[in-house]
Formats: sequence, C-alpha cells, structure tokens
Amino acid sequence: MLYDKSPPSPPQDYYFVKYRDLMDFIESIFVKLGVPKEDAHWVADNLVMADLRGIESHGVARLRRYVDGIVNGAVKARPNIRIIRESSVHALIDGDSGLGQVVGRKAMELAIKKAKDNFLGMVLVRMSNHFGISGYYAMIALEYDMIGISMTNARPLVAHTGALGKWIGTNPISLAAPTKNPPPFVLDMATSIVPIGKMEIYSRKGKKAPMGWGIDSQGKYTDDPAVIRREGALLPLGGLKELFGGHKGYGLAVLVEILSAVLSGSAILDDVGQTQGPGPSNVGHFFMAINIEGFMPIEEFKERMDLMIQKLKSAPLHPEFEKIWIHGEKSWLTAQKRLREGIPIYKKTMQMMREVADQVGVRFPWQL
Amino acid sequence: MLYDKSPPSPPQDYYFVKYRDLMDFIESIFVKLGVPKEDAHWVADNLVMADLRGIESHGVARLRRYVDGIVNGAVKARPNIRIIRESSVHALIDGDSGLGQVVGRKAMELAIKKAKDNFLGMVLVRMSNHFGISGYYAMIALEYDMIGISMTNARPLVAHTGALGKWIGTNPISLAAPTKNPPPFVLDMATSIVPIGKMEIYSRKGKKAPMGWGIDSQGKYTDDPAVIRREGALLPLGGLKELFGGHKGYGLAVLVEILSAVLSGSAILDDVGQTQGPGPSNVGHFFMAINIEGFMPIEEFKERMDLMIQKLKSAPLHPEFEKIWIHGEKSWLTAQKRLREGIPIYKKTMQMMREVADQVGVRFPWQL
Repeated sequence: MLYDKSPPSPPQDYYFVKYRDLMDFIESIFVKLGVPKEDAHWVADNLVMADLRGIESHGVARLRRYVDGIVNGAVKARPNIRIIRESSVHALIDGDSGLGQVVGRKAMELAIKKAKDNFLGMVLVRMSNHFGISGYYAMIALEYDMIGISMTNARPLVAHTGALGKWIGTNPISLAAPTKNPPPFVLDMATSIVPIGKMEIYSRKGKKAPMGWGIDSQGKYTDDPAVIRREGALLPLGGLKELFGGHKGYGLAVLVEILSAVLSGSAILDDVGQTQGPGPSNVGHFFMAINIEGFMPIEEFKERMDLMIQKLKSAPLHPEFEKIWIHGEKSWLTAQKRLREGIPIYKKTMQMMREVADQVGVRFPWQL
Repeated sequence: MLYDKSPPSPPQDYYFVKYRDLMDFIESIFVKLGVPKEDAHWVADNLVMADLRGIESHGVARLRRYVDGIVNGAVKARPNIRIIRESSVHALIDGDSGLGQVVGRKAMELAIKKAKDNFLGMVLVRMSNHFGISGYYAMIALEYDMIGISMTNARPLVAHTGALGKWIGTNPISLAAPTKNPPPFVLDMATSIVPIGKMEIYSRKGKKAPMGWGIDSQGKYTDDPAVIRREGALLPLGGLKELFGGHKGYGLAVLVEILSAVLSGSAILDDVGQTQGPGPSNVGHFFMAINIEGFMPIEEFKERMDLMIQKLKSAPLHPEFEKIWIHGEKSWLTAQKRLREGIPIYKKTMQMMREVADQVGVRFPWQL
C-alpha cells in the first residue's frame, strides 16, 4: 500500500529528498554548532522521523528555531544533564537547557532501563527545550517490547474553557504499545483540536481554517489561521464550550501540565520561554516505560493487542468513511512510502535549510 | 458559595435525603446480600460520593444493577481477591468477580502502599465489575498527599472513528492531585463527548440531546437519546469526524483499553459482560499512585499547583462565560452544599431503592 498521510500538494512546491541525505545534513548542522555527534544524531532522528511520518509541522521545517536557540545561547550545545533525584524506578533530571531531543532521548532511555530492571520507570525532566514529536520518545520503548508514554508542556497557544487568549500549551500525550503484526499502536496527539503547525500550513497555503479550531482576541470563532496564531488562540479538544467537552480537552492539557511541569519543577504555563531565547525556555517533560513482562508474557500481550485492533477494524464501516484506522497506522504507511520514494520537503523549507547551511558553514547537498 | 453542579430540576421530582442516612441504607443493602461490612461501606462510599458530587448517573440510581449482579451470581459478595503477579512497585490482581468498588478500593490502596515505600505504585485488575465513578479511586491518593490516576474499560457504548455501532466503552481517565487550598484538582472524564448517563437523564426528562453527541444505527446524527442508547452509539470526544479530533477521543479510549484491559488480561471491548450477568463481566482497571516526595517536597508541589490554578483563573473571561473553573471545583462545591442541605434523589430512584429494600429484606428509612 502506498498511502501518504499528507501527500505533497501542489507537487511543484516540494523537493523530494532521500532519508539518508536529510539525516546526514541535519546531523552535520548540529555537529558544526558544537553538539556531540551522537546527540546530533538523535536530534536529526527526531526531526526527520516527523517528516517521514507525515508530521511536517514538527520536522526539519523547525530547524531554524533550534539553530537560533543555540546561536543565541538559550539552548546549550553541550549541556550538563544531571540526575537530581533517583530511585530504582524513578528519576528527576535537570536538562541544563540542552536540546529537548537530547535530554528527552536520555530521559526515556533511563526510564526504559529502570523498567527493564524493576518493571516500571518514570523519569521527569525540567530545564529542557521543545523536544519535537512526542511520539518519538514513546516509540523508543517499542524497541524493548515495552509500553512507552511521553508528555510535555509547551508555550501557551490554547485558550482554556472560559478564557480569552493563550494560556496553556498544546501539551501532547503519547502512548506506544507493541503489536504482533506491524504497525505498532502509536497515539501521539496534541490536547488541542489541532496543533499550531496546522495553522502554519494553512497560512502558507492561503487556506481558511474550519470554523471551530480557534478563536480571535474577542473569543469569536475565526477561520483566519494567522489570527489564531497571532492575537487569538487554539481551542482545546472538545471545542469552545462544555457542551461538546471542551472542558475535557482543557483537563487533559492540565493533566499534562501537572505531570510534566508542576511535578518536575520546570516552568509552568506562560513562564515557559521560547526556544530562540532570550533565556532558558525551561520546558518540562514526562516519560514512562512499562515492562509488559510484569503483567503477562510479551507474546500474549502482542496477540491481545492484535485481537483488539482486529475487533476495532472489523466494525461495520460508517457510510461517510473509507476505512477504519488505528493510531500510528497512517504514519507508519507514510514512513514506508517516504523511505522508498523520498521525503517531500517544501521549497521554502529547503531555502531555509540552505540559509542555515551557509550561516553555520556546512555544505548544502542539494541543487535548488 | 452554594453552587450546585446539577441542581434538581424540576424540584418536585426529587426527595432530599441526608448523606448519613443514604450511606447507612446502601451499606445495609449490601451487608444483607452477604457483602462484608467494610466492603459494603466502600461500595456505599463510592455510590453516595457520586451523588454528593453531582454525578447522579453513577450514584445510587445504579443500585439495582449491582444488586441484580449479586442475586444472579454474576457478582460475588465474598470474592477471593488474589494478587497474581507483584513487585515492590506493581501488581496484577484477579478480582474474582467481586464488586468493582471493593476490588478497586483494595487495588488503589495497594498502589498507594507501594508508592509510599518505593515512590511509584501501579496496580492492574482483571475479573472485576463496573466500579462506579473513576475519580473516586484517584481521590484516595489525596488522603496520602499523592497523585492518583485511575482508568477502566467498560462495555462498548461508543462508535470509534469510521465505525457504525457500539465498539468501545466510555473508558474514563481520572487524575487527582493535591493543592494547598481546596478544592484539590480532580479530573474525571469519559473519553466520549458525554457519558451514557446523560442519555438516561435526557430520556427521563423527555429532552432532546444536542445534535453531535451520538449517532443512530445508520451513522447519522440524532437528537433522540433513546436511539443513541439503543441501536445507535455515543461519539468519542472530538466528534464523528477527524476534522475536530474525533480520532483523538477514539485514541484516548484505546489508550485506556490497552492499560486497563489488554495489559491486565481482562475482557476486551465487546467481550466485557454486563454487571447483571449472565457470567462474569471481567472488567479491567488501571490504578497508579505517584509519591510526590520522590520529586519535590509536598508543600512545594502544592504551592506550584495553586500557582498554576491561580494563573488559569486569572485569564480574561470569555464574554460567553461567567467564570473560569478548574477540574473538581464544581463537584467539590456541590458536595459541600449537599452535605449541608441534603442530597437530591429522583423520586423514581427512591421508588427503586424501596423495591430493592423490600426484595432483600432491609428497612427502607424514608417516607415516600
């Protein structure tokens, strides 16, 4: 199957680049900025995985912000990542303003190590930065046949129920669980109706947003993605009012804020800074690994996952839908296709990457 | 403040009963059915707390189902609740078809004990029954200054994205966290737009449901709560389509199904039985306690919670709202009012309770 979650449209706006070339290029940028080679690899892995899986809003299009963060001194290329508190099953980490992808990778690996030895591992992080797609960290657990969970707070973009303006982040929740047959289950969702990246994409394409995604500065629905980004706000999952559960999306965003920020000692709500600076953004993350063998043999669990998925897919199809999907399936198929055929990257993003390459003094490997 | 989350309307449809009388009556019913006194107390505590907090759909109105379950033999009054697997931080419990409230209470207390000694406690349960309001279990952690999390799967009532009919439960997620000033934060939400209890209330009042809460057997929106309950289905948080995030509500329901059912070895999706029988319903639960002292001093955490809440409440008010609420606040105020002024119970519910009292041979303490 050659499914593409976010087919490049219009095709003339994109270049197709090879996975390997993109990885090498992103790595080289961060290495040149003083990031250790292994760390640079994980940053590239995270950004390129977003593009592979069709989540362009969190992919290499964000390169500029991370580079600016390092250049401005708000993000440290060589942070002193420290464990502040620790037991056999939990830890609290100070990320020392390192790249979120580096701090996040290390924290999740620590959670997995603890779960390997003691069934559970929960690692919280303070003093970190934007860590890219949340699902990336939950998915690391899959390599160890574990369930992975990750969450993060972020700069406010969402108006909570009853409020005007941006007060809470799009605070994503991710859970990955292994299956017998691919793809694995990967839930990776902002707790707002849509992530802010959608507004950027709609703005770029000159498209109007569906009424209901966001509000203007007076609290009225607006279909102008630029207004939602600028003076307005996104709405929580469930929408503006309690009638359709807006207070639930708001509640999930607060749940993420509590677990990743209040409990970790990081910045809360509007105290979270920007990746580009000035000053540390002090983002908080939450990571958890669950060792399935503590509950049942892994093969039994995987068969049960497949049984659940098969049941969900066997439901009679709603006449307005073409297929019943499971979470992570579209992204997985998209990644298969893009690994084979190349990753579509906006011309504007390619242009930005060339400028970054020139700025830091790295060879730009593509002809534009 | 005398706020009431669900003010009795019309007033002539209700009796007001005292908290203590209702507790004693419910306890006496279960004791008479062979449930040990302490267990009967926890069942009453759970059901009456729902009525106190304005969640009538999960309160004593459900007494009949639990009683029928025991009378029919599907629910055991004296189950042999066993720990199947265990470590210092986790456990898997077989509830032996006991009352969900009894199994759930014991499982959550075990999670708390483990978190007390080792920072984290995660306890999963299989072979249980409907356990009432999910928030009840998360809130037990508050008594120990911990964060509590609880989830459960349930009989299917929701059409997942792309499906016709009922395939997945309203699978609630709860998180309770202590604050310095009351009320504590308590998120207790079905992952559907509304719980099925709302349909029951709308049916009883002869009210139409808002279009968008549920669909009929053909997948069309319907405002008939009876159709949604019978041949139709509830919709996940976010609604029918992916446009407003219906796949996210669906994903959260699956997250709950994985953690409470796939991983516990309980029944999955439509294999979950009814409380009344025949046969065990084999519901699965997930409980977790997080010892805050593993991350920071409890007083510091509580101050940070209050800071977050104060920030959220300080936002400019949207012109269509009267107030910004935090989760658990309405329920807490409602409970204060009802403890003082009495708990409104539908006349129909009082009638049902009198019938149950007659059936099991317990004195009914109220004059109807």
